[in-house]
Amino acid sequence: MFEKEYDVIVVGGGHAGAEATAAAANMGSRTLLVTMNLQTIGQMSCNPAMGGIAKGQIVREIDALGGYSGIITDKSAIQFKMLNKSKGPAMWSPRAQNDRMRFAEEWRLALEDTPNADFYQEMVSGLLEENGKIVGVRTSLGIDIRAKAVVLTNGTFLNGLIHIGEKQFGGGRAGEKAATGITEQLVDFGFDSGRMKTGTPPRVDGRSLDYSKMIPQPGDSNPEKFSYLDTVKLTKQRDCHMTHTSELVHNLLREGFDRSPMFNGRIKSIGPRYCPSIEDKINRFSDKDSHQIFVEPEGWHTVEVYVNGFSTSLPEDIQFKALKSVRGFEEVKFFRPGYAIEYDYFPPTQLKHTLETKLVENLYFAGQINGTTGYEEAASQGLMAGINAHLKINGKEPFILERDEAYIGVLIDDLITKGTEEPYRMFTSRAEYRTLLRQDNADLRLTPKSFGIGLATEERLSRMKAKQEKSEKFVNFFRKTSFNPEEINPILDSVNSSSVKQSDKLFKVFSRPRVTMDHMLQLDAVSEYVNQNKLDTEVMEQTEIQVKYSGYIEKEKNNADKLHRLENVKIPDNFDYSKLKSLSFEAREKLESIRPVTISQASRISGVSPSDISVLLVFLGR
Amino acid sequence: MFEKEYDVIVVGGGHAGAEATAAAANMGSRTLLVTMNLQTIGQMSCNPAMGGIAKGQIVREIDALGGYSGIITDKSAIQFKMLNKSKGPAMWSPRAQNDRMRFAEEWRLALEDTPNADFYQEMVSGLLEENGKIVGVRTSLGIDIRAKAVVLTNGTFLNGLIHIGEKQFGGGRAGEKAATGITEQLVDFGFDSGRMKTGTPPRVDGRSLDYSKMIPQPGDSNPEKFSYLDTVKLTKQRDCHMTHTSELVHNLLREGFDRSPMFNGRIKSIGPRYCPSIEDKINRFSDKDSHQIFVEPEGWHTVEVYVNGFSTSLPEDIQFKALKSVRGFEEVKFFRPGYAIEYDYFPPTQLKHTLETKLVENLYFAGQINGTTGYEEAASQGLMAGINAHLKINGKEPFILERDEAYIGVLIDDLITKGTEEPYRMFTSRAEYRTLLRQDNADLRLTPKSFGIGLATEERLSRMKAKQEKSEKFVNFFRKTSFNPEEINPILDSVNSSSVKQSDKLFKVFSRPRVTMDHMLQLDAVSEYVNQNKLDTEVMEQTEIQVKYSGYIEKEKNNADKLHRLENVKIPDNFDYSKLKSLSFEAREKLESIRPVTISQASRISGVSPSDISVLLVFLGR
Repeated sequence: MFEKEYDVIVVGGGHAGAEATAAAANMGSRTLLVTMNLQTIGQMSCNPAMGGIAKGQIVREIDALGGYSGIITDKSAIQFKMLNKSKGPAMWSPRAQNDRMRFAEEWRLALEDTPNADFYQEMVSGLLEENGKIVGVRTSLGIDIRAKAVVLTNGTFLNGLIHIGEKQFGGGRAGEKAATGITEQLVDFGFDSGRMKTGTPPRVDGRSLDYSKMIPQPGDSNPEKFSYLDTVKLTKQRDCHMTHTSELVHNLLREGFDRSPMFNGRIKSIGPRYCPSIEDKINRFSDKDSHQIFVEPEGWHTVEVYVNGFSTSLPEDIQFKALKSVRGFEEVKFFRPGYAIEYDYFPPTQLKHTLETKLVENLYFAGQINGTTGYEEAASQGLMAGINAHLKINGKEPFILERDEAYIGVLIDDLITKGTEEPYRMFTSRAEYRTLLRQDNADLRLTPKSFGIGLATEERLSRMKAKQEKSEKFVNFFRKTSFNPEEINPILDSVNSSSVKQSDKLFKVFSRPRVTMDHMLQLDAVSEYVNQNKLDTEVMEQTEIQVKYSGYIEKEKNNADKLHRLENVKIPDNFDYSKLKSLSFEAREKLESIRPVTISQASRISGVSPSDISVLLVFLGR
Repeated sequence: MFEKEYDVIVVGGGHAGAEATAAAANMGSRTLLVTMNLQTIGQMSCNPAMGGIAKGQIVREIDALGGYSGIITDKSAIQFKMLNKSKGPAMWSPRAQNDRMRFAEEWRLALEDTPNADFYQEMVSGLLEENGKIVGVRTSLGIDIRAKAVVLTNGTFLNGLIHIGEKQFGGGRAGEKAATGITEQLVDFGFDSGRMKTGTPPRVDGRSLDYSKMIPQPGDSNPEKFSYLDTVKLTKQRDCHMTHTSELVHNLLREGFDRSPMFNGRIKSIGPRYCPSIEDKINRFSDKDSHQIFVEPEGWHTVEVYVNGFSTSLPEDIQFKALKSVRGFEEVKFFRPGYAIEYDYFPPTQLKHTLETKLVENLYFAGQINGTTGYEEAASQGLMAGINAHLKINGKEPFILERDEAYIGVLIDDLITKGTEEPYRMFTSRAEYRTLLRQDNADLRLTPKSFGIGLATEERLSRMKAKQEKSEKFVNFFRKTSFNPEEINPILDSVNSSSVKQSDKLFKVFSRPRVTMDHMLQLDAVSEYVNQNKLDTEVMEQTEIQVKYSGYIEKEKNNADKLHRLENVKIPDNFDYSKLKSLSFEAREKLESIRPVTISQASRISGVSPSDISVLLVFLGR
């Protein structure tokens, strides 16, 4: 019924599976996406939004690499915000609200428009393995489909168990079946598996809310977008709204705590620390008598609303009673209650940097199966797994992003080096070199690399090159063009910057705090240059960052270079740590289990101290 | 968690459930739609098309009554055809291909835009009954939701069992869970239940087909539409394609017959006779060495394709091998195999004309639960159940359509009078008065009635009245305006109709065969009248039908009137048939079980002969 052998089979059609399929197929692999339901490809299981702090940067990186998440987000966005715009550009984080139906439809159509991607709807219930290599999957109808590589992106479906109050029932998502069979087989292969938990808030009827009692949260007045390609910026947007819980709400919720699966021991696994349920928040921060609730529309036209901040697995009557006491929710009607879900994951220290498993060759894991949380984290892993599956079966070098090259590099390195015992979420603080890993330069960082492996298109590369060239020239313009004190002093005055006596290069004043591109554009020479060269906002923004933050950027580059020297010190494959008696016991144990590839990776393992690294360096002759 | 008591709860969000919700809510009932998945409201489970012979008339009737199916169909159509246009207007049947995703989305948004309609996502697993009256439902979480009336529209979900070859598994549709609990409880209440079967063909990847080997099936060059309101006609359309099975294909299919659940006894229930599986067709029509296959696109943009005519539950490998031998399908790729599904239904003789059950007050059944097949049949029942639930709980007269008023009247009367042991589908041949029940006059027939009970809007009524008035005037114009032989004879000549010697009324020549409105428009007087009165195509069509078919229409009206006299002979509620020894045994048994309300209904029960009717009439004093 299927091709004799696919190059790549992707199991699951969520963010990870969709990106994996697109990447492998676009690089030239005959790829089959197998999903339990073709109508739920690209489904946003939880909130109808993409991006946010650090996550927005990841989406920009996915786009720069030639993934689809940025394009899909732009096409289905109903609101756009650049978060942290008041901070330095390393912190700027794009975030969009999306139309949930549109988002899934755009994903489906984008994948259908990918020539090497085939589709099949059925549950995968087993894996085909021969001599330590994966060779395909088996479906629940008993159909064997062979492939050179398999990417598993099962999300919350593996033995998914939904909890609402005292009730629990099998399911991968509300209204959808759980998937069985795969975990059991992987454990047979020798994999360690664990359970994780996540949750989602109630969905409610927007017609039942009183928005006049809430604070509108509009999008940016000049919305930007995610993709470096020519997707369209929003010309109209939908507002979100903010409201708050209160002591009364918390007390009402507490009434259900003895029936909560979180507190009565029924849920044993760990949920996402930074996306806690409302009962968790009340419990952990008992001194706070109010928490924010963001009321997010689910699309352009639908009345369905997502109650962000109110994730819960308390009994549905408690959810209802408490939510009714939130300002604006007095007459709330539920579309469905919130719930928690437990699912199987596989500690990601069992993976290589390529996301291939160490135990079974050509088998890749991406997304929640690796213990992460978040659409963006999942999508980026899917992309990298898809890329590396393609490269591996074609005998090519793996594609690995370093920690100073991409948040995606940080994410994967963290996962496989440190593992995770709670759902892993990306933060800017996880990146040592966040000044380098900005949302504005993901194309400059990553598009040439991706073009090099055959994923990013010519169009992407030439767009990126044009932007780079134009902003470099513009920076040089500032370096070599002099200002006239009479012209510049009123501007410096206006921002309380000390005035200048004599002419100097523009770069010098532009570097000063509070002096912005907008100020520069008041100068005839600058505005003429911009007009003559038809510079767009992206180029101007990039130039401004290069001028104003060049010092910081240089410094981080130097730090990163130092580390790269350690990165170049490889540790042999079968290195025998037991010979190094001067290593601490903990370090020896961790090193033996994780088997880092370089000294640099070894240094990031928790429990491996700087003195352990010295021991290793000495032994390796450095 | 819910209103103290809803007026109406509708269980299920398919065609029947969606129409029931809209009708009850629009009439003023506080209505709750409970469905297992809010994302699948208005899902087209089988082919992506609405209407067709007799079914298209039903959609027009639903629209005339103020239901939504016509509007939704127009909004999501990708192709429109008026079938049977070469036959008389009684046979004209509108049919549309639809974008499956758009159709569901439009339904969802239309219902959300219905102020009295609320929504809740969960499985209903039980019914609340008190003293023979329904008082609400119980969900799988154990939530009791009270209501004055409940409409069950469970489709194929009640104990749904999917078959593919030797494999069988529980499910309500591919990828969706079955629903349990309701059948068991209804049987406890004393209902008879049965099993029915239906099936669906494989979905395939349109990119794998060679359309150059098939025959294009374009839509009409002047597409019409379903709704009498101001929905928009299609300006572009997508083609379908036709191909054929062959002896080779049949032989390949036969290879799987011993593994077919249809033939090896695993499926015991009866499937839709007029929508048989391909294996059924081969088996029943073994002399035919070819069957038509219609290749229907699933939407404007998707590559997914529906293989109409190839419904099957044969093993997936047989499906694949056989379909590959169909011209144009040589390289076919499956999205998912076809399957058969068995589900519970309740013989509809257990219902009143209002679709209320005889056993439990205020409980209504609509759609496949009544043993019907087809979106249109389901939608119309949902509409009628929603209307009657609202009327009943408000103490108003039931709303019943007679057999000479609507196909919907024929459908419901057939169901409750004759019952059905195989999935019931509507045909024009089921209607005695099909000359009256045309697609063009559904508004004239039904909109005033629906306005009378508070469902059809003012706008609908005034549109219908304007059309009626204009066409009546136009008919009169033909009655009173004389022609000039010199002007008319060339036209008569051109259609081989004998020429006239002297002037007479236009009506006379227009009534002649082969003389059409287009011919009339060649006359200055007619085209001037049309321009002056700004008559649209609908009015001209209506006028043409009234002129050309007035004889037939009158005759059928007279026949219907005769029958209405019998209709007026009511049979008392507790009539004791055992007293009438001269009734045949079979008639007595059927009459006792079905308990017809009128002599007319009694006459339509199979097994009740004209002489039995005479006995009844004599006894009742006629």
